Amino acid sequence: MNKTGSFLSKTEILNAAEQTLRKYGPDKASVTDVAKLLGVSHGTLYRHFPSKAALREAVTERWLEEMIVAPLTEIAAIPTTNALRQLRDYIAKLVELKQHHAAQDSEMFKMYAAVTEESAALVEVHILKLLDHIALLIARGIEQGFISGEIPAAVQARSVLYGTARYHHPAHAYEWRSPGVREEFTRLWALLERGLSVH
Amino acid sequence: MNKTGSFLSKTEILNAAEQTLRKYGPDKASVTDVAKLLGVSHGTLYRHFPSKAALREAVTERWLEEMIVAPLTEIAAIPTTNALRQLRDYIAKLVELKQHHAAQDSEMFKMYAAVTEESAALVEVHILKLLDHIALLIARGIEQGFISGEIPAAVQARSVLYGTARYHHPAHAYEWRSPGVREEFTRLWALLERGLSVH
Repeated sequence: MNKTGSFLSKTEILNAAEQTLRKYGPDKASVTDVAKLLGVSHGTLYRHFPSKAALREAVTERWLEEMIVAPLTEIAAIPTTNALRQLRDYIAKLVELKQHHAAQDSEMFKMYAAVTEESAALVEVHILKLLDHIALLIARGIEQGFISGEIPAAVQARSVLYGTARYHHPAHAYEWRSPGVREEFTRLWALLERGLSVH
Repeated sequence: MNKTGSFLSKTEILNAAEQTLRKYGPDKASVTDVAKLLGVSHGTLYRHFPSKAALREAVTERWLEEMIVAPLTEIAAIPTTNALRQLRDYIAKLVELKQHHAAQDSEMFKMYAAVTEESAALVEVHILKLLDHIALLIARGIEQGFISGEIPAAVQARSVLYGTARYHHPAHAYEWRSPGVREEFTRLWALLERGLSVH
């Protein structure tokens, strides 16, 4: 390609980084490999990725944003008359997306799982986005009279996200192949929904 | 020591195995090291532990039994007039025990976490013991009129155990040092308790 650093867009760099990580694997891929693929100097690229960890994090961040956050943002934005049902659909979609990518794009998923353990900051930002969506849906459900307002929506949002962790947290991916896992989630959701509901 | 295999008790063997695993670490400890410590032949010990994996599993099994299952069995056996409160105490104790050992006996805990991912059979037996306790408490709570009987106790037991996984499943140990984790569990429990209760 042979470009100067100033003409590189963030998308071009991330595309090359993702391609490199997929080709060599997260352990072997280096910043130098990405620079080579882009036809720029090592020094130019170091301004964008000062370390291999930064490379992995940037690619993971984009992957999470496109594959997980974007479709969930759409669900949260739909105007509905029953936000409790919408919350169920939202969490079910979160579970489905994570389990789908763990099975179908296991290389990227493994990198994401590793980054989850290493980069608290990146994961915190991701989690805060989901918590915002969930709190919004809970607040809407309280307004509509479906969800009990005894506990603040932001507090209940954490309980809902953390209470379903077994079905979407990457540390549990090895348990998702078990045959009963879908039924289990449905049962747990029924319990949580009963806990959230106005009685 | 120099003993013949027939005089070795299971306790002696497990003590030697645990001591060896603690001394050399789970990756480096070998069946030969345990045989040396006991003063028996490699062949004698192989009748008890056909592989290093079997060694790690046997020690983990005893550790789980003594450190986790035994104190929980005591809590489940107490005759109380409010089994829903007893269930809360049971889950809180499970959380406390796991988090305590993760912090205070991190070597054994790490081995247990690794075995959890590798040996489905051992973990299943362990989980079934906890589920039996939890189902018993839920059934008692239904009888006493505290817990709703709409859903079978054995089904709710799974939801209660899996819904609190973030606070006792070893895959989450790296998150337990976060300062809000105790408060988070209390909040989640309030939601689950509301879901379980008779309204």
